[in-house]
Amino acid sequence: MKLWDKGFTIDQQIEKFTVGNDREIDLSIAIYDVQASLAHAKMLASRAIITSEELQQLEKGLKEIALQIEAGTFIIEPQFEDVHSKIEYELTKKYGEVGKKIHTARSRNDQVLVALHLFYKEHLQHVLIKTEGLFNTLLKLAKKHKKAVIPGYTHLQVAMPSSFGLWFSAYAELLIDDVYVLKAAIKTVDQNPLGSAAGYGSSFPIDRDFTTEALGFTTLKYNVVAAQLSRGKSERTIASALGGLCNTLARFAMDICLYMSQNFGFITFPDALTTGSSIMPHKKNPDVFELIRGKCNKIQALHTEMLLITNNLPSGYHRDFQLLKEHSITAFEEVIEILTIFEYAIKQIQILDIDLTDEKYQYLYTVDSINTLVINGASFRDAYQEVGAQVQSGTYTPATAMAHTHIGSMGNLCLDKIQKKWDKARK
Amino acid sequence: MKLWDKGFTIDQQIEKFTVGNDREIDLSIAIYDVQASLAHAKMLASRAIITSEELQQLEKGLKEIALQIEAGTFIIEPQFEDVHSKIEYELTKKYGEVGKKIHTARSRNDQVLVALHLFYKEHLQHVLIKTEGLFNTLLKLAKKHKKAVIPGYTHLQVAMPSSFGLWFSAYAELLIDDVYVLKAAIKTVDQNPLGSAAGYGSSFPIDRDFTTEALGFTTLKYNVVAAQLSRGKSERTIASALGGLCNTLARFAMDICLYMSQNFGFITFPDALTTGSSIMPHKKNPDVFELIRGKCNKIQALHTEMLLITNNLPSGYHRDFQLLKEHSITAFEEVIEILTIFEYAIKQIQILDIDLTDEKYQYLYTVDSINTLVINGASFRDAYQEVGAQVQSGTYTPATAMAHTHIGSMGNLCLDKIQKKWDKARK
Amino acid sequence: MKLWDKGFTIDQQIEKFTVGNDREIDLSIAIYDVQASLAHAKMLASRAIITSEELQQLEKGLKEIALQIEAGTFIIEPQFEDVHSKIEYELTKKYGEVGKKIHTARSRNDQVLVALHLFYKEHLQHVLIKTEGLFNTLLKLAKKHKKAVIPGYTHLQVAMPSSFGLWFSAYAELLIDDVYVLKAAIKTVDQNPLGSAAGYGSSFPIDRDFTTEALGFTTLKYNVVAAQLSRGKSERTIASALGGLCNTLARFAMDICLYMSQNFGFITFPDALTTGSSIMPHKKNPDVFELIRGKCNKIQALHTEMLLITNNLPSGYHRDFQLLKEHSITAFEEVIEILTIFEYAIKQIQILDIDLTDEKYQYLYTVDSINTLVINGASFRDAYQEVGAQVQSGTYTPATAMAHTHIGSMGNLCLDKIQKKWDKARK
Amino acid sequence: MKLWDKGFTIDQQIEKFTVGNDREIDLSIAIYDVQASLAHAKMLASRAIITSEELQQLEKGLKEIALQIEAGTFIIEPQFEDVHSKIEYELTKKYGEVGKKIHTARSRNDQVLVALHLFYKEHLQHVLIKTEGLFNTLLKLAKKHKKAVIPGYTHLQVAMPSSFGLWFSAYAELLIDDVYVLKAAIKTVDQNPLGSAAGYGSSFPIDRDFTTEALGFTTLKYNVVAAQLSRGKSERTIASALGGLCNTLARFAMDICLYMSQNFGFITFPDALTTGSSIMPHKKNPDVFELIRGKCNKIQALHTEMLLITNNLPSGYHRDFQLLKEHSITAFEEVIEILTIFEYAIKQIQILDIDLTDEKYQYLYTVDSINTLVINGASFRDAYQEVGAQVQSGTYTPATAMAHTHIGSMGNLCLDKIQKKWDKARK
Repeated sequence: MKLWDKGFTIDQQIEKFTVGNDREIDLSIAIYDVQASLAHAKMLASRAIITSEELQQLEKGLKEIALQIEAGTFIIEPQFEDVHSKIEYELTKKYGEVGKKIHTARSRNDQVLVALHLFYKEHLQHVLIKTEGLFNTLLKLAKKHKKAVIPGYTHLQVAMPSSFGLWFSAYAELLIDDVYVLKAAIKTVDQNPLGSAAGYGSSFPIDRDFTTEALGFTTLKYNVVAAQLSRGKSERTIASALGGLCNTLARFAMDICLYMSQNFGFITFPDALTTGSSIMPHKKNPDVFELIRGKCNKIQALHTEMLLITNNLPSGYHRDFQLLKEHSITAFEEVIEILTIFEYAIKQIQILDIDLTDEKYQYLYTVDSINTLVINGASFRDAYQEVGAQVQSGTYTPATAMAHTHIGSMGNLCLDKIQKKWDKARK
Repeated sequence: MKLWDKGFTIDQQIEKFTVGNDREIDLSIAIYDVQASLAHAKMLASRAIITSEELQQLEKGLKEIALQIEAGTFIIEPQFEDVHSKIEYELTKKYGEVGKKIHTARSRNDQVLVALHLFYKEHLQHVLIKTEGLFNTLLKLAKKHKKAVIPGYTHLQVAMPSSFGLWFSAYAELLIDDVYVLKAAIKTVDQNPLGSAAGYGSSFPIDRDFTTEALGFTTLKYNVVAAQLSRGKSERTIASALGGLCNTLARFAMDICLYMSQNFGFITFPDALTTGSSIMPHKKNPDVFELIRGKCNKIQALHTEMLLITNNLPSGYHRDFQLLKEHSITAFEEVIEILTIFEYAIKQIQILDIDLTDEKYQYLYTVDSINTLVINGASFRDAYQEVGAQVQSGTYTPATAMAHTHIGSMGNLCLDKIQKKWDKARK
Repeated sequence: MKLWDKGFTIDQQIEKFTVGNDREIDLSIAIYDVQASLAHAKMLASRAIITSEELQQLEKGLKEIALQIEAGTFIIEPQFEDVHSKIEYELTKKYGEVGKKIHTARSRNDQVLVALHLFYKEHLQHVLIKTEGLFNTLLKLAKKHKKAVIPGYTHLQVAMPSSFGLWFSAYAELLIDDVYVLKAAIKTVDQNPLGSAAGYGSSFPIDRDFTTEALGFTTLKYNVVAAQLSRGKSERTIASALGGLCNTLARFAMDICLYMSQNFGFITFPDALTTGSSIMPHKKNPDVFELIRGKCNKIQALHTEMLLITNNLPSGYHRDFQLLKEHSITAFEEVIEILTIFEYAIKQIQILDIDLTDEKYQYLYTVDSINTLVINGASFRDAYQEVGAQVQSGTYTPATAMAHTHIGSMGNLCLDKIQKKWDKARK
Repeated sequence: MKLWDKGFTIDQQIEKFTVGNDREIDLSIAIYDVQASLAHAKMLASRAIITSEELQQLEKGLKEIALQIEAGTFIIEPQFEDVHSKIEYELTKKYGEVGKKIHTARSRNDQVLVALHLFYKEHLQHVLIKTEGLFNTLLKLAKKHKKAVIPGYTHLQVAMPSSFGLWFSAYAELLIDDVYVLKAAIKTVDQNPLGSAAGYGSSFPIDRDFTTEALGFTTLKYNVVAAQLSRGKSERTIASALGGLCNTLARFAMDICLYMSQNFGFITFPDALTTGSSIMPHKKNPDVFELIRGKCNKIQALHTEMLLITNNLPSGYHRDFQLLKEHSITAFEEVIEILTIFEYAIKQIQILDIDLTDEKYQYLYTVDSINTLVINGASFRDAYQEVGAQVQSGTYTPATAMAHTHIGSMGNLCLDKIQKKWDKARK
């Protein structure tokens, strides 16, 4: 059953190809289609395009469908090409004439758009909440391990002292930058596209402010052409927001995998969080963090996919847009799972003892040695040359550590200030 | 059941996350795992690592599994983390001790690698065959419509005369360039990685030439470290080969959608190949070609995905590689479907009459006008200036068409030569 | 001259390779390095790490350099590996000892970071201003041409009436979404990284709040490890913000090129804005918009470049980061030029007459025909079927246009509301 | 001076924007334009479109220009929009009428195309030669260090013994896969596009076989429309070929940076190949390999750039294609420099002693322990369980190493076979 049935038979092979896995994907947005249809019906009644009796019938029907969706019993049978055809069919089967009226003054184009905007908005907020959970966990870990010194590296070479406190809270603070972009993405989708119909509006005197308020949108995508042009644009912004977050997580996971290597030996995890090898019985591998890294890297490719699908297309709807849905929707599921698992696993991290007197760490404090010379009157560059000469000639004696006290240094993590920055970004 | 079971319980949530949808994906490579296991078992027997009786048992068991796979009755239950664990379990359940021996001198790493290489090789060849079908169809269409003139465009501006013959055979000839890269991709995977074990070989005296021949590989990936490093590399090469082909198809589809627009009106398709609108009853939309374009564009993003997953990882296996499988495997299914549908649909194309005397095409023959002046003695640049001045002043009279006779021009399509180039590329 | 000179000679070939075109690129950030060095020197004096006399010398020297930069006479000679070495050398040459002190408590790592943050912040604001200019121009054009009807397309098929008013203001409204992301990018770089030194802070009691205020940053990147981790992250966010804006412009340019085609014939530009062909004297090509499209598409690839350079690198500085600078800096120059040219050219657009009674536009008003039936009592779906049957049987008579009055439709562009949304987004 | 000068003034700002940095880029392809112009002139004479006297003049003029190019004295002044206008101008200035004839039967479109094909073909072959140099060096290093054992890693965890021999020759063998794709890229550009004019051929009776032979192309891009469609397609294939090679080099560089870390300590380089830090006097950083990695990663993004520029454009020339040139041309220069530096630097690698008895390597031989049990009669899986239990309970005693003798293992590197595979791929 198609909303545009014309009486001639569509080629079966072509139909299978064009419908693709839309029915399956549409289950994720079904509830949002119901919400939007409900708001649309109320608006039609408010404008006397349908009667209040008709509205009551539609409300009853849509609420039943909503219950089925929540209960997991709602299905889209093969004879329907998408969720929208299915719902209109159900309403018409049950209530007759009024079912044929629900599509007045809208098109599938704005129907899909509004459902996706609602889906995206809610899921972006879910991502923010999950990110907040991870942020809090990282600040706690930073506080707990703030005195545990680790070597800091530049160029993967031993450089200067760092600490677990710095390491955990660095990634916490980075998440704030991800919040900025996530919130921009929310603004992008928090605009009601309903009423743009096929992308050119309609001659019905619809009330778009009504549906905007009913659906909880902050504003409208006013221009009906702009509404269609946002297909792909929203997905690119979302992909880049999720991708930015995933990049933070992937790089953190890379550190974790490296620090778990026996050659670093900084951290480990309980056996139950690691996995083994089919031929090496001694292996306890950090698969969970490798998969986090890999999945995060995969999600970072979503931006290119969204871009390639819409790039250089003239304005107006194209069927290509259908393909934007699948991986955008699954990306949300994946990101939420990744955040859940990351927080779950990082909480169980075990900090190992690091022998900083080991020969490989002998130059960890050269900058502190320079500092001592500077305090005693040398210029920085001369002190640098002097310590450098000692290293070159093999006469350098490791300094003992000096206190780092400035803002954001290992002795002064400013966790409270990072928390405040988060709070400000989040609201 | 895990090949590396150690007696402690893996965290359930972690396990779900790490296994992901591997069981589902692995069904696509199950038959190749059986083939490779069979070859491995024969090799073990040839080296007396197992007895010939044991080999018989393994052969019997693996052939039964192969039959199940073909019949579609083979399933990987939730207690198995992948197809490899499942098969070893089945063999052990049925034949006891010998099932525990099949994994001698191999690792899951080379087991997955060899199954993927077999899958990729066979499917790349399938893609070539399907591409050949489309190539042949396009040459036929070019021959059939070789005299039908259409306007040629540069900068989307009316430029010079072209023809349907040129248009169809242009895309045919482009497919030859795609064949070059597809064949390079085949060479990349037509190398036996079996025997590389976890990426560092083993101390068993295995015979890698034996399995190479048994599995029909042209050569080996000799170096065991190189075998693991090819994870991701193969997928990138494949993604770029499929992506190149998809780019050809996507641009062709773009032309088709444009030429079907009422503003061009060059072609149409039977009603059964088009789809309608939920609010505009007159619409016959080229959805099938829009979806071909969109799907092809999506597949072109696969290269970035494969790249991001493996980029900057040090040598040696990482669990991230598991994520290379999913979209590589589905890309093959999609490309094969796209090629099938494209050929099916393009065969039904209907050429429309184009009124070349319409005002908008009035300058279509200016280059022919110049040519006439050149033949009568003017230099090219002077003739260009003269005709240009006529156009500027509004005194230009459209020339009648001149014959284009040179190689590859509308009057001399060289379809036989393009066919020969194809044949040479293909073999 | 290198800041880290150790007395042994660096291989010449290696040096050339590692320095690359850094000297050239660094000219773009030289002024920001001077600003940051000045703030750093003042802070050192405030903490009594240098004396007030020393500060005066440094201020004098740095201001002289700033004047040279503004005058375009500042050059980085081949013996310096970057702008930072050059400036320290100049100060030391002129003032001796104090020049050797300017690098106290900082590293080239945070020196580059802070200069880039200042560059990015200022240039993002410049992009916003230029975008605002284009936005205003588009609103004016929308107002001017609000009554000029054009066909609206879906699937590149004639669909429903649209207007130049809708078209211009659609792209104006889309720019607001780009502002959201640009402002998120500004937040990302509006954080002082100075004081993070090599990524692990220092034992000098520096005052990072002092430099934050002196440089006009809204906040700090507190955590010193996070500061280094922002390398690449800032550039990705910027690339995605500029890329989003470029996508809007590229799609607009695509429409323009299409509408200029003789087959559409909706718009044209003065001769002086078009270019010709080397062999077709009649051509007036929209090269400027094709190059806008192409350059915008190129800039959209920057995100992938930034991502690939930093992907999967463990935390801590890596020399790879040097390569993030070049194309980020040139992207800003290009985007600003594109916005300038776009506004300059679009102002000169000429609207052509479109004959909407042409046969190809005969079904432009079918939705209005349905609407009339609905107003007369039919349900939407029945009316749709009736008009569809008329079209199928060839009995459909084109309706006359109905008024579109709802928010955001062609009869009610809501330009004032779009302006208000812009104002809110911009502040 | 423009080839398409029409008598009206092009807007200065627009002209600057459209010409961009074309003059600068075109210097790289100037010599190829001369070669192609020479072949074109000879063909015109052979077809009596110009006289043999005219040919002599053109030959003389073009050879003079070629000498200037070789001498580095050829410049494209600001009044010319590209190299093609400049050369036609020079010929006309010197020889008058005949200079105006050189453009007969060609267009700038095929002129640029043929020059680029010649450039690409020659530079791809240069890349192959440089790759061969690196391949040879790696095989030599593998041979020299074939007995030096290093730990092999999976998941960055100590796994099984590997060797420097395996490591060097792994990357050598991987380069063979890169050769397959590079050779496919060569095939793609080794097709003469000259004669396709603006993409629709011409009515002149040109002899395209003549120029094909004269320019050393193996075959033609027959179809004139296909010739234009190869713009972008060639660049994508090249980008993916260079990108594949760069990926191999980048991952190798990642290993090098990791193995140089004090935490691994497997290798080092002479001081002259390393660089220092502005604040840490002890640092000897592997900047050269970090920059190789970074530059290689940057080049891997070229594919996306080429793709985005041409994606979804209808057939026929678009000015966007101009933007394909710049980064394609510079990528070749960069790849050739990278290969030169890589070979130069890797030759100086210094292998360090690794203490494999260190506790962190205690499980390096567990697979050999299993093997011993298997040889003594246990099944693989039972032996695996037994050794696993020993590791769990802390009773495992490190085995002594067993010989690895199979093809491609550390005891049998098969360098001669890898050499043969290279030879076969290369020819």
